[in-house]
Amino acid sequence: MKCIFCEIVDAKAPAVVLYENDSVMAFLDINPMNFGHTLVIPKKHYHDFSTIPAKETADLIHAMQIVSKAVRDGVKADGYNIISNNGTAAGQSVSHFHFHIIPRFSSDFHMKVNLKKYTGSSIYEYAEKIKKEINPLRRDNE
Amino acid sequence: MKCIFCEIVDAKAPAVVLYENDSVMAFLDINPMNFGHTLVIPKKHYHDFSTIPAKETADLIHAMQIVSKAVRDGVKADGYNIISNNGTAAGQSVSHFHFHIIPRFSSDFHMKVNLKKYTGSSIYEYAEKIKKEINPLRRDNE
Repeated sequence: MKCIFCEIVDAKAPAVVLYENDSVMAFLDINPMNFGHTLVIPKKHYHDFSTIPAKETADLIHAMQIVSKAVRDGVKADGYNIISNNGTAAGQSVSHFHFHIIPRFSSDFHMKVNLKKYTGSSIYEYAEKIKKEINPLRRDNE
Repeated sequence: MKCIFCEIVDAKAPAVVLYENDSVMAFLDINPMNFGHTLVIPKKHYHDFSTIPAKETADLIHAMQIVSKAVRDGVKADGYNIISNNGTAAGQSVSHFHFHIIPRFSSDFHMKVNLKKYTGSSIYEYAEKIKKEINPLRRDNE
């Protein structure tokens, strides 16, 4: 099955491109939450944030700073969300990692969900489970 | 007014810390969308993503990769969202930049909003507005 974002990178599918460099591309989401809603992707196909190599991750976040500021200022937004959905359970619909940049205006919409409540010592139990999985990644230049 | 995240960094306010290095700290959100919901912050106080210097942004994203994978694996989640709200209009409640890492499980909740539709040539007009604001940032080491 072809990946639509890989096709956009290869100029085999259309996109309204806003920014591009060797490893990163930014284009408008054609199904925007607000006008100016932008996607920023690594040109290479990675499914999940955790699998992107350190160098490309650094390139990606550098581009994100350039583009998110431009989105906000270009559409004169009051703020912006940065969102990345990793995995179908998290709402990922295209299997090529992407950051959403969503310009926001006062009182445009709410993304609230019901919050949960830690009881007793459960917060410490969750912390221990997570800390056990903390394995510092090697940076490419180390 | 004191910043609660600066107080956490200075160990003047409590937090369940998961990860820490010279410039970045990760701790559990005490009002979680799901148990294991984690916040990752630069130790220095920056309000907005666009104002974080390049070196600290790179440190932040490197830590994000370590911690998001640990959150997912630690709580055995099916996926995870990375979210950053920049500005009150975007839902930012603490004025110290932070990334949320939210572990997700199949069918736990929906964060959908009504999508908008570009009509006529409006998508190109939005692209032009944004492209005019694309000012590549200088990297610290350039």
